[in-house]
Amino acid sequence: MTDTDSPPPDDEAARHREKMRKRKAVQDARVAQATQEKGLLMVHTGPGKGKTTAALGVMLRTAGYGLRVGFVQFVKGNWATGEQEALKRFADLIDHRVMGEGFTWDTQDRDRDVAAATRAWIVAQEMMADPRYHLVVLDEINIVLRYGYLDVADVLAGLDARRPNLHVLVTGRNAKAEIIEAADLVTEFQAVKHPFQAGIKAQRGIDF
Amino acid sequence: MTDTDSPPPDDEAARHREKMRKRKAVQDARVAQATQEKGLLMVHTGPGKGKTTAALGVMLRTAGYGLRVGFVQFVKGNWATGEQEALKRFADLIDHRVMGEGFTWDTQDRDRDVAAATRAWIVAQEMMADPRYHLVVLDEINIVLRYGYLDVADVLAGLDARRPNLHVLVTGRNAKAEIIEAADLVTEFQAVKHPFQAGIKAQRGIDF
Repeated sequence: MTDTDSPPPDDEAARHREKMRKRKAVQDARVAQATQEKGLLMVHTGPGKGKTTAALGVMLRTAGYGLRVGFVQFVKGNWATGEQEALKRFADLIDHRVMGEGFTWDTQDRDRDVAAATRAWIVAQEMMADPRYHLVVLDEINIVLRYGYLDVADVLAGLDARRPNLHVLVTGRNAKAEIIEAADLVTEFQAVKHPFQAGIKAQRGIDF
Repeated sequence: MTDTDSPPPDDEAARHREKMRKRKAVQDARVAQATQEKGLLMVHTGPGKGKTTAALGVMLRTAGYGLRVGFVQFVKGNWATGEQEALKRFADLIDHRVMGEGFTWDTQDRDRDVAAATRAWIVAQEMMADPRYHLVVLDEINIVLRYGYLDVADVLAGLDARRPNLHVLVTGRNAKAEIIEAADLVTEFQAVKHPFQAGIKAQRGIDF
């Protein structure tokens, strides 16, 4: 072997092969390590449309496997008629709880909002302890945390105390940093374009 | 009225009110303009997980309204069992066409891939011309365009020629710039975290 600044082409090819071999070894080791069976904490956040509809997809896919889903709706009114009707076809596998009377952003009745959030969180904890569920969805809990209607430390402790194999999906824009930190999978929905900007009104079956 | 450099507080307040009034007028005019009933071209793209599952949610929400959906799967194999089983409960409203034998990324049989993509595109065009459909989903067509198996100008012309009230959703990472440009709504899926990085293997009902 020689030690030169300008190696011949054969050495270049050998070095490339060696580099690729090492890369593959690293990749193989990663795959081998990824063997832990664990319930995931998933987050749908970001300013874009589709977080709720994507959660519907996750729920129905899980139900498609014949696995049971618990669904706690922390904010009333953000689920469209079409989404609710679709859920009805899976009423045997998806337990849907709409909590409280909805939030009172307009009336500023903070005590009522805190009470509703607290009730929803109790139901969520019951579901997370129930071995029948494969997935529990906490829809719009990020909003509730953002407004301080629930304490993020309490929620994190509750998520941490869930059954080891239970998957949990939390949704809502402005997810707290503590939730992102605790999560296994975070999907950020970015709206690159929105039709409202182009002069098109909201339409049934697509926007509401 | 006086003309001074330092107007009294009353003038400040009046100017603020006038500024707010103008802003509101602009906003009202925007809302008034947003009255166009138009079939939207929607795009799910980006490197994050969930584009396909979110498309499932959009389809099932539309079906939840009792509206008919056409679904052309351009790449065989990316729909999980759970997603397919969920679709079956909506077989009365969602027409699902899996086109070709799947793509041959491994065998590099380009002619076969082009033929499969072309057949899928013919089915897509038939669906886009069929007045029974409220929504047509072209799943993974972005991949097909990225590989050059279909011509982007042909696809844009076909999308443009669709019935005016038909909504179309195209999915797949690396959406072509021409598709983004033509779209009314683009949602970019960003993976902030992925469980594979944390040593957790893919799990039924969540990852596949």
